[in-house]
Amino acid sequence: MPDPFDSRSSRRNFLATAAGGAAAFYCTIGNENVSLEKAGDAAKADAAAARVERPRFVTSRSGARAAATGAVVDPVDQLTFGKPVPDPGGRIVEYWIRARTVKWNIVPTKRDAWHDVPIPGKTQFKAVCYQQMTDGFASPVGPPSIPGPTLHAEVGDVIVCHFRNELIDLNQAVTMHPHGVRYTPDYDGVYLGKYTRIGGFIGPGEEFTYRWEARPDSVGVWPYHDHGPNHTLNTFRGLFGSLVIRPKGAPAPDNETVLFFHSFDPPITGLQRGFQCINGRAFAGNTPTIRAKVGQDVAMHAIGMNNDFHDFHIHGHRWKNDAGVFTDNPTFGPNETVTARWIEDNPGRWMYHCHVFAHQDGGMTGYYLVDP
Amino acid sequence: MPDPFDSRSSRRNFLATAAGGAAAFYCTIGNENVSLEKAGDAAKADAAAARVERPRFVTSRSGARAAATGAVVDPVDQLTFGKPVPDPGGRIVEYWIRARTVKWNIVPTKRDAWHDVPIPGKTQFKAVCYQQMTDGFASPVGPPSIPGPTLHAEVGDVIVCHFRNELIDLNQAVTMHPHGVRYTPDYDGVYLGKYTRIGGFIGPGEEFTYRWEARPDSVGVWPYHDHGPNHTLNTFRGLFGSLVIRPKGAPAPDNETVLFFHSFDPPITGLQRGFQCINGRAFAGNTPTIRAKVGQDVAMHAIGMNNDFHDFHIHGHRWKNDAGVFTDNPTFGPNETVTARWIEDNPGRWMYHCHVFAHQDGGMTGYYLVDP
Amino acid sequence: MPDPFDSRSSRRNFLATAAGGAAAFYCTIGNENVSLEKAGDAAKADAAAARVERPRFVTSRSGARAAATGAVVDPVDQLTFGKPVPDPGGRIVEYWIRARTVKWNIVPTKRDAWHDVPIPGKTQFKAVCYQQMTDGFASPVGPPSIPGPTLHAEVGDVIVCHFRNELIDLNQAVTMHPHGVRYTPDYDGVYLGKYTRIGGFIGPGEEFTYRWEARPDSVGVWPYHDHGPNHTLNTFRGLFGSLVIRPKGAPAPDNETVLFFHSFDPPITGLQRGFQCINGRAFAGNTPTIRAKVGQDVAMHAIGMNNDFHDFHIHGHRWKNDAGVFTDNPTFGPNETVTARWIEDNPGRWMYHCHVFAHQDGGMTGYYLVDP
Repeated sequence: MPDPFDSRSSRRNFLATAAGGAAAFYCTIGNENVSLEKAGDAAKADAAAARVERPRFVTSRSGARAAATGAVVDPVDQLTFGKPVPDPGGRIVEYWIRARTVKWNIVPTKRDAWHDVPIPGKTQFKAVCYQQMTDGFASPVGPPSIPGPTLHAEVGDVIVCHFRNELIDLNQAVTMHPHGVRYTPDYDGVYLGKYTRIGGFIGPGEEFTYRWEARPDSVGVWPYHDHGPNHTLNTFRGLFGSLVIRPKGAPAPDNETVLFFHSFDPPITGLQRGFQCINGRAFAGNTPTIRAKVGQDVAMHAIGMNNDFHDFHIHGHRWKNDAGVFTDNPTFGPNETVTARWIEDNPGRWMYHCHVFAHQDGGMTGYYLVDP
Repeated sequence: MPDPFDSRSSRRNFLATAAGGAAAFYCTIGNENVSLEKAGDAAKADAAAARVERPRFVTSRSGARAAATGAVVDPVDQLTFGKPVPDPGGRIVEYWIRARTVKWNIVPTKRDAWHDVPIPGKTQFKAVCYQQMTDGFASPVGPPSIPGPTLHAEVGDVIVCHFRNELIDLNQAVTMHPHGVRYTPDYDGVYLGKYTRIGGFIGPGEEFTYRWEARPDSVGVWPYHDHGPNHTLNTFRGLFGSLVIRPKGAPAPDNETVLFFHSFDPPITGLQRGFQCINGRAFAGNTPTIRAKVGQDVAMHAIGMNNDFHDFHIHGHRWKNDAGVFTDNPTFGPNETVTARWIEDNPGRWMYHCHVFAHQDGGMTGYYLVDP
Repeated sequence: MPDPFDSRSSRRNFLATAAGGAAAFYCTIGNENVSLEKAGDAAKADAAAARVERPRFVTSRSGARAAATGAVVDPVDQLTFGKPVPDPGGRIVEYWIRARTVKWNIVPTKRDAWHDVPIPGKTQFKAVCYQQMTDGFASPVGPPSIPGPTLHAEVGDVIVCHFRNELIDLNQAVTMHPHGVRYTPDYDGVYLGKYTRIGGFIGPGEEFTYRWEARPDSVGVWPYHDHGPNHTLNTFRGLFGSLVIRPKGAPAPDNETVLFFHSFDPPITGLQRGFQCINGRAFAGNTPTIRAKVGQDVAMHAIGMNNDFHDFHIHGHRWKNDAGVFTDNPTFGPNETVTARWIEDNPGRWMYHCHVFAHQDGGMTGYYLVDP
């Protein structure tokens, strides 16, 4: 009987996750299965995504609907939905957002400011991101970023999000799928094959307006991300952002940061090595350096955005979990949010990081500076 | 010094978990260690399990006990226990359950109804499951299923579970080990080598009656599973089910589903590929399609049943976590339960899925249909 | 298009994590990146750690500070801090602790007392641990252990921890970094390259005194561990322990155990196989055998200390989670603590274990004996 703990298989074990995470994954794209194992596979996935046909059986909001030739039609797929309106006193909060590619540098300083070392090699690749625009898509509000814009609303508001897919070169449909807010199936932003609704397949060059409601059960910080036919690859390329929903009239923290914990791995980037990232960057000095002041109400929201689980540690600080018990290192999963919030009382230079040692060592760290 | 992020090791990294999870495992079986890495290893594990001797030092409930030749006898191993009785007003809730093999099709529709694609290849294997029988094991209550029957009780009740091991061909002992309920060591259903109690080794062709108490701290939804000498392999083959314990007189939700998140991997199934499963099936249209109606009190309970961690997302819905904070994507581990419960107010076709992208893409998705 | 679920890649998948966890990792050590994949790599990491220069820009508590030649000086790096004093009525709680190497046997009984089987092969290696000493480092309080000593304090106390690095042969700096307690940057115990404070680099043969405050938000059980330039390797070798902070005057449970869930893998140990460990040992009979009595207030605190996530199950018992809901199997991550506490009412022999099946089978189990 073979010894399961023989060093030869153990060695494979160690090789297997050398970059510090369960980084491999598999995509279902339209009607093809594509495995993302090496750099060239992303191109195959893109080609497959370009071949995905516009869903024929989409119910439009006006009630028009193509005949479901050969398909079993379920009554729920024939429902029609109106547009949500704000509560009395609520607002329409309008955003203009496009999906675009961007030359993205994962380690722009070329250094790790934790261990004070250079990070050698190529660190730039063609990422995909959401970019906020001024009204009517007139011009960018700022440079492209990963994550995309943070969308703010209060309970009772409706977020009206005008979305344009500018991924002409990638030639595939993408969407915006939000967590936390309420939406009808039209605004779910999910590709569902023949059951796809109008917001679930925004082709290259096309626009769509999502309408999402901030309800009492929406209070919190949530991710949004692509959920089109090639969702895993595009999300892992950077196509995600956050929503911050507060109670009506509730003040924002003095100092608030949303931190996405994710990775850029070779099959996604075509680069020689993988990176453990926070907000699109790897290694302290590249990831957000957060600055606060003693006395401030500080909040950090950590959200997972890859296949791994993480936990979130900030040196020198503790905070209450949802149940009111003090913690300094809670676990969170893909698209799950944990919030750390406290009144700042501890000046100095602090590290924040994922406490999975391999993730921390692979770049998932940052600095938090507190002035007296 | 070798570059740890060199693409060659990174490539291995991606290959390593191509099916989307940490699917490999290792079994301790009786007095042998068996590694489950490839199809043939399951047969080796079964052969090892068949060689496990009936524990000699089992204390019977009547107090009879074999001499502990050569073994250190601890006083706790000499304790004897009675049979639990219901609280005043409580009931005996009786179940008849057998363990059996079953030809199980993981993807009976041969399609993924999310991406509307065929799933090619062989998807059937010899699984093992718990099957509910009528009184006295007279006949099956229904067809064999994965998971096995859901056992219901209220606080104050005693569940009397008559169990028969019909795994004659597999020729090995199995058990039922419950979570959540109270039991004495006799009814723990765990193989413990020389410390094994009477409920911890039910040989092929044998019967045993477990007696489990629903106490106030048992309220909730819990898994049960095999915990005999070959527990990992048999559990991973499908030998699990759930217990639903409610407060005395508490109404059930209008619409309640228990969802096991697990996998069927090649060393278990002998098939060419791995599947990320919910309740024994992979891919929407095969996993449970849940149907509810606006106004209903809806509950879904997600339980992990492999080596991986998962998180549970339902499109279009939020619910309170244990601490009363709204979530739509909580993390859970092997044999841990998370409950999502809400009053339905959002009609349409919705996806539910594990939000580990690789699990979702590997089949861990389903449809939830809400009628107006 | 290649089939991502082809058995050949699936087989690699299974090989990849045959020892039952994401065991591979990567270290950033000072100014070099070292991958820990096989036995020899630890020696390379140690050599790299020995080359790490004493940080030149450390701010001493007296205010003296080397000129920051070529470095951007941030005001927070120029802050100076005093020594914390206890609250009125609080105490100075003093500990003397050294870091040392130790010949450590992972399976001293050479047996697994769960399945009653021998564990063949070499199970001893050169570990690193914290060892408690009498005042002035005069003599050891007891034999070296993994984990190191449990440090106790109450809210209002200051823990004064005298630390000596006796890792002369390993020739590298180590530290003590605590969770849960409050500290200024001087006592953070973290190596930060050029930003390192005085407690973040304790060279071989050197001593340092940490001062940590037990605050109201420190109540709980927390880990401490090395956070010097080679922190992952040294922590994974055994350089960790726990802090137990109680409210002022609060009684301790009658029976309290801190349980670290971690692994000793071949690149760390140089042994042929990996071990899934609790408190430095693998397999029941080697891991702690905990003994309690009916009526006792029993507490077990489980803390993760490797790259994996775990969940904690105790047969025959349920307890309230932070939110007051009953559980028997909560998830926890690296350096996260979950506490199980209950009034004992169920005599007998019980298993406790991680419920990740592969971890359980790889040694992460123990016995809990309850006398009537």
